[in-house]
Amino acid sequence: MKIELNRINNAFHFEGINEDGLSVAIDANKEIGGEGKGIRPMQMVLMGLAACASIDVILILNKQKQTIENYKVTATAERATEPPKDFKKIDLHFFLKGDIKESFFERAIDLAINKYCSVAQSLDKKIKINTSFEIIK
Amino acid sequence: MKIELNRINNAFHFEGINEDGLSVAIDANKEIGGEGKGIRPMQMVLMGLAACASIDVILILNKQKQTIENYKVTATAERATEPPKDFKKIDLHFFLKGDIKESFFERAIDLAINKYCSVAQSLDKKIKINTSFEIIK
Repeated sequence: MKIELNRINNAFHFEGINEDGLSVAIDANKEIGGEGKGIRPMQMVLMGLAACASIDVILILNKQKQTIENYKVTATAERATEPPKDFKKIDLHFFLKGDIKESFFERAIDLAINKYCSVAQSLDKKIKINTSFEIIK
Repeated sequence: MKIELNRINNAFHFEGINEDGLSVAIDANKEIGGEGKGIRPMQMVLMGLAACASIDVILILNKQKQTIENYKVTATAERATEPPKDFKKIDLHFFLKGDIKESFFERAIDLAINKYCSVAQSLDKKIKINTSFEIIK
């Protein structure tokens, strides 16, 4: 797996490019000179975690023939107040609309976070990841 | 810090949205049903790492009055072959064009990766991060 990152301006606006040529605008926190022109690096990681877990949750629920009409996740992170301001705690809230058995959803989230999700398993083990969920039938 | 992730289609196309309303298209690996409509989750993390380290490197070099004309990073990752396919090794290659002292660049990269970069310090300590660099005057 290989990505490229190019600096776009004289501040902290970057463009990340993957192997398929797809790009994403990345920028620094405004407090240190960013201009709000892109996703911040730690937000990239948080989105990567939410997406990775979601892919595994959906794969598992699909295998169990559960019908997903609508799907959303929010990720809220607490970071250290001092540099390097690393993640301390991440709360993932999974929202699903569909004909889903609650126990299946709960188990799928658990398997995703604790077993299958590549991003979760690449994060520092000291980061506490909490999960919660709601289903609308 | 909070992000939201919405599912866009019935496969694995997601939209990640940050607190400023900026969004990024995310998609799964094609082998498991992705359609190449977005950045893959582990690529998001890799780009986050490259950008985070770059912000710190540039901040440090700016303080030292080094002139950066052009800046690029490539990140190459080795992942486990079996699920959860977590990162095992990441090689970051920093490329700079400008009037830069080699020792300053080397030290800035070291400080970024090993001390200041939030993403690097949030990754599993077992992941080996190697760095290399080149300067074009």
